Amino acid sequence: MADPQFVEDLVTPALVVDKEIFDKNCRIMDAALPGLALRPHVKAFKSTDLARQLANDGHTGFCAATLAEIEGMISAGLDDDLLLANETLDAGRLAGLSDDAAVTIAVDSDETLQAVIDGGIRRVLIDVEVGLPRCGCSVEDAGRLADRARSEGIEVRGVMGYEGHLMMVEDRGSKTRKVERAMATLLEAHEVVGGEIVSGGGTGTYDVNTWVTEIQAGSYVVMDTHYDGLDLPFEQAMTVVATVISVSPKGWAVVDAGLKAFGLDHGVPTWADGELMFCSDEHSTLSQADGSMKLAVGDQVRLYTAHVDPTVARHEQFWIASGNDIVDRWAIDLRHW
Amino acid sequence: MADPQFVEDLVTPALVVDKEIFDKNCRIMDAALPGLALRPHVKAFKSTDLARQLANDGHTGFCAATLAEIEGMISAGLDDDLLLANETLDAGRLAGLSDDAAVTIAVDSDETLQAVIDGGIRRVLIDVEVGLPRCGCSVEDAGRLADRARSEGIEVRGVMGYEGHLMMVEDRGSKTRKVERAMATLLEAHEVVGGEIVSGGGTGTYDVNTWVTEIQAGSYVVMDTHYDGLDLPFEQAMTVVATVISVSPKGWAVVDAGLKAFGLDHGVPTWADGELMFCSDEHSTLSQADGSMKLAVGDQVRLYTAHVDPTVARHEQFWIASGNDIVDRWAIDLRHW
Repeated sequence: MADPQFVEDLVTPALVVDKEIFDKNCRIMDAALPGLALRPHVKAFKSTDLARQLANDGHTGFCAATLAEIEGMISAGLDDDLLLANETLDAGRLAGLSDDAAVTIAVDSDETLQAVIDGGIRRVLIDVEVGLPRCGCSVEDAGRLADRARSEGIEVRGVMGYEGHLMMVEDRGSKTRKVERAMATLLEAHEVVGGEIVSGGGTGTYDVNTWVTEIQAGSYVVMDTHYDGLDLPFEQAMTVVATVISVSPKGWAVVDAGLKAFGLDHGVPTWADGELMFCSDEHSTLSQADGSMKLAVGDQVRLYTAHVDPTVARHEQFWIASGNDIVDRWAIDLRHW
Repeated sequence: MADPQFVEDLVTPALVVDKEIFDKNCRIMDAALPGLALRPHVKAFKSTDLARQLANDGHTGFCAATLAEIEGMISAGLDDDLLLANETLDAGRLAGLSDDAAVTIAVDSDETLQAVIDGGIRRVLIDVEVGLPRCGCSVEDAGRLADRARSEGIEVRGVMGYEGHLMMVEDRGSKTRKVERAMATLLEAHEVVGGEIVSGGGTGTYDVNTWVTEIQAGSYVVMDTHYDGLDLPFEQAMTVVATVISVSPKGWAVVDAGLKAFGLDHGVPTWADGELMFCSDEHSTLSQADGSMKLAVGDQVRLYTAHVDPTVARHEQFWIASGNDIVDRWAIDLRHW
């Protein structure tokens, strides 16, 4: 099959990124957090092709959520400074791969520190719990783990703590105060741990969290409707393009993108011209507000996702579009585990 | 990496199927709907390896929701009688592939019938709307489309109609009455369309819908917690195995299977020993009912999904387990579009 030249040539459902909006999102973030002040989180976009764009802009340190993401980034040569931003017991999977790569892994317990040592990884961040009920140790444990790591010859580069529970606080003043309190815990841990890195944040707090040395953000590149409520300067660059396969005289239309083409954990996708009634496995039913249905079989529609990360993980590639022209294809090569 | 011998050797998150329960589910369905009375729906399990098990039991007619599923089934030689159980405008993708394969495609409009003709497909079912706001034409249109198809030399094998809105009716008497009314519409269409096939149903109505000539069901092979409320004889055979990577002194534990390893459209996964508090992208936070936390870092847990179809679509393989032994690996090769 010839490469598609235009959006209407795509096999649907297809993940399409508007190049101009993507570039604008990147420019805005780059101005706010140049170079290593941003550590892009590849979990959001799972693509070494996309990561290379960010590296070309000077953001050469990355973080990841899975070993498969780390492995893929090493294979792509994007391995100047890779952080696995959560614990693993399987660091040995990187043996051989990581000889020349600079891999750092988050640890929050003796067991996960031991796994790093046994796996031949030489650098850690101490992961500190700052209010989100997920990974991270207490401030007291942070110092003890850092001491033990150093006594084993491991480089302790600093601390990380993810204030994920504060991403969606809408009021900026309230968010700033809450993030400051969360980061006070992280800075307290940093006092005892030492090292040059204090890592945290995300797209929702990228310009509020001024206490860290680097922000872990990824969703900003393409955005989603879940972030709509926040006053962020980034715009939605990504849509799922679908084809109308059935129109009912009763007023609804059916398109060929269903719940397997989206992450629904933040809600159903959005259709600008009407309502998305429900998602089936491979189809969605649309209705128009005034009860009429202007769509015809064969029309394409664009649906906006409520959560970029799991939506991206369901697709094989981003089709990069300038207007209606397909100008590039970025493989989503960091899927699975 | 050597093939894993035991469940504890698996890279997590891993999709594990209990062979004994799977076999038992298959035996129950096979007794109720032997041979071609069951047309297994590959959308549920997206695996030609699994489909071959069902074909070996005599269920050699399959249905599918995507062209990629049809293409994969043809490539695997499981192409005695393949039904694309919804409309497509892209039947031409099967040209060349389908010369020896028996592919039937559902149509509900002139446009989708024309796409079948243009794509070189020679067999259709007329898809009739029976109450679910999705695909399917009216009874009146069904006869007209069948006439037009036959005048173009297309074999019209009969009708299909999916009563998806009735799968979860809990009371069996009420469900039976509602399915009967939905199928009355389908049989009315069959009167005017003709052909030997009346296709419909699903795991939720497999033994209630006695009006069709074949049932389209797939979830029954491994089941999910969403079907728990129904009085079905099938048991849950599939779990996502995850590893504990962090335990907090505050009483929660974190495992390495998050929302990217599950379909969450029917709710969060279930953990038999306590509560799943929330899913992050690649992790889930668990708590135990009595506030204690007995899990330790490195422990494996098994999580049951609320919706099998989208969960399977996120994984690369089923690991088939007999007790703790891995006895087989079935590729999930029918993913994407």
